Amino acid sequence: MSLSFTIKQACNETLARAGVLHTPHGPALTPVFMPVGTQATIKTLAPWDLTAVGARIVLANTYHLYLRPGADVVAELGGLHAFMGWDAPILTDSGGYQVFSLADRRRIDDDGVVFCSHIDGSEHRFTPASVMQAQELLGADIAMAFDECAPYPCGRDYARAAMERTHRWAEAGLAAKTRPDQALFGITQGGMYEDLRCESARFIAGLDTPGIAIGGLSVGEPKDVTWRMLEVTVPHLPAHKPRYLMGVGSPEDLVEGVARGVDMFDCVLPTRIARNGALLTATGRLNIRNAAYERDPRPIEADCDCSTCQHFSRAYLRHLFKAQEVLGLRLASVHNVRFLVRLMDHMRAAIMAGEFAAFRQSFLAAYRPADAKARERNRAARRAPMAA
Amino acid sequence: MSLSFTIKQACNETLARAGVLHTPHGPALTPVFMPVGTQATIKTLAPWDLTAVGARIVLANTYHLYLRPGADVVAELGGLHAFMGWDAPILTDSGGYQVFSLADRRRIDDDGVVFCSHIDGSEHRFTPASVMQAQELLGADIAMAFDECAPYPCGRDYARAAMERTHRWAEAGLAAKTRPDQALFGITQGGMYEDLRCESARFIAGLDTPGIAIGGLSVGEPKDVTWRMLEVTVPHLPAHKPRYLMGVGSPEDLVEGVARGVDMFDCVLPTRIARNGALLTATGRLNIRNAAYERDPRPIEADCDCSTCQHFSRAYLRHLFKAQEVLGLRLASVHNVRFLVRLMDHMRAAIMAGEFAAFRQSFLAAYRPADAKARERNRAARRAPMAA
Repeated sequence: MSLSFTIKQACNETLARAGVLHTPHGPALTPVFMPVGTQATIKTLAPWDLTAVGARIVLANTYHLYLRPGADVVAELGGLHAFMGWDAPILTDSGGYQVFSLADRRRIDDDGVVFCSHIDGSEHRFTPASVMQAQELLGADIAMAFDECAPYPCGRDYARAAMERTHRWAEAGLAAKTRPDQALFGITQGGMYEDLRCESARFIAGLDTPGIAIGGLSVGEPKDVTWRMLEVTVPHLPAHKPRYLMGVGSPEDLVEGVARGVDMFDCVLPTRIARNGALLTATGRLNIRNAAYERDPRPIEADCDCSTCQHFSRAYLRHLFKAQEVLGLRLASVHNVRFLVRLMDHMRAAIMAGEFAAFRQSFLAAYRPADAKARERNRAARRAPMAA
Repeated sequence: MSLSFTIKQACNETLARAGVLHTPHGPALTPVFMPVGTQATIKTLAPWDLTAVGARIVLANTYHLYLRPGADVVAELGGLHAFMGWDAPILTDSGGYQVFSLADRRRIDDDGVVFCSHIDGSEHRFTPASVMQAQELLGADIAMAFDECAPYPCGRDYARAAMERTHRWAEAGLAAKTRPDQALFGITQGGMYEDLRCESARFIAGLDTPGIAIGGLSVGEPKDVTWRMLEVTVPHLPAHKPRYLMGVGSPEDLVEGVARGVDMFDCVLPTRIARNGALLTATGRLNIRNAAYERDPRPIEADCDCSTCQHFSRAYLRHLFKAQEVLGLRLASVHNVRFLVRLMDHMRAAIMAGEFAAFRQSFLAAYRPADAKARERNRAARRAPMAA
């Protein structure tokens, strides 16, 4: 097996657990947040910036890289790790979400999807096997099965059909898999229907994959529905396999996800909102464009160890954003990714110390989530859309 | 004196010299290239990136910083060095060039200029004294006198009037100067008229400033005119004062400028052309968007020690540019600034070794300058325009 997972400690009061994901490119401690590098770059950040903030595994997207520069080009240059200069673990998303989000520019049949490139309109066909092949060319440590992410809201019949297609495609992907040094994760779907979620979890759990993802959540549904769907899914997943909740990454959601037994998360949120000037702090988001920060000599957070907080004032960051200087996007991204990585570190330490429930309570008491408007603005950002 | 200059070695065959500029924020070896941080940031680069490429002194712009965030804001935050996190020498341009380039949005009188902000159209007045005061608030190691840079082409009468105004304003700036820890450089003008250039050089040389700039060159005139104007200026400048040729920074121009006795240069060229995908190499510019680099596994330059060349292929850089990823701008900027800093280092070493003439010949034999079209594209970029 190319990938293994060891659970080091489980929480007594919640489903949280602390573990280690062993990959061909080294270990990653879980629970883990994976910054998103859609186009083989975590926007504005160099690999050493990611290492410096403690990021250990990153995500890239098959849809985007298949179209540009081409999976064969990446393979010729030694695979994704060599291409993007990142010698630690990588996970590639299969492109299912991106292709289906193309809406009127794609046609689904039982064997695959024909779609038009968002770059030049050219027509392409993805099948479970072709997506598997592309991911083998990219060569990430973890590949994802090609799935159909049903929209929200979505009728029961459509949700079932999409789920069944996702199951068949997971089997087809597994059958097409040839690289022994790459793991393939199945993805559970089921829309917002509890019974479908259970059925999907049981089906995907029955496949021979070393990890399982929960897809199709945080796509616009109310938060309580997200958590309910997660709660009915997790009990059907094998305890010894890592669980990956796709496209979720706000601080409060990471804590709630971990409490419900999730080990891995990815989201463009920290880098996306950073580029809008929204900075994560222990008490909530801070909008650096605000006039209040014009002469504020303090760092974003007094106790943050990121290079941005170590070197620059809020006033300087505000200036960079007001003056539309690219460095602002970078410094903000460093801080936000560091914030989430540290949050995961703190959760892991709390689990190991048997204090996760208390950590959860105290973190959520201090953290004021973004209001509905800000959430809505960033909802579409939870997974990388087709246009990066 | 806040600033001193020591000449370590002079070339026997050209006017080139190697020296050390001592500033309140440490020494800078000359000849030196100063990357331009118009808005208190060298576009895309963090201070530690600049340190890593060997940059030792940077430029910022009074016009831009006066308007945004305001010189008083910078002062309140501890001055430019603290504000931008750069603890090495800084030079501020006076804003003369920027204000005069506003064309129909400014009115000149003998005491100053009224202009409209390029940001919000608001009206402001710069005088030699107010510009001096703004620069004292910014707190760079070296401030520049407020000058009038005549356009090209420009009639003799206008060139003389602009020169005489520049002389009066240099005196007024000196009279307004109060900070003992900041040096003020005078600027010579004179358009493309040899006698005016000589007159201006003599006048500015007569002022009590620890350094002298040559302004108003590389503004569209033919290269042979640029060099002729420099050649008639330099003999009138005191040998013991550093000479700063403003807004010049292409590799071939740096070599020619050093050969003619210049110690300091600034230019947005390396970072500006980097953002267009033009990368400097020992044989000329390489356009990384070119299809030829799609699968090129080599670094930009095999023997370059910059972090970009140490970690990434041309193929990856091309991908970043084609995919419009911000990281591409940053990696390209790192390389181009490193290229120019290393070129200056090589010139200094050659001067110290008594081999500058040979170095000049061999560098220029290998380096193919950008063609006229590319030069024209970058001409306006030689000094920071009003819109950064």
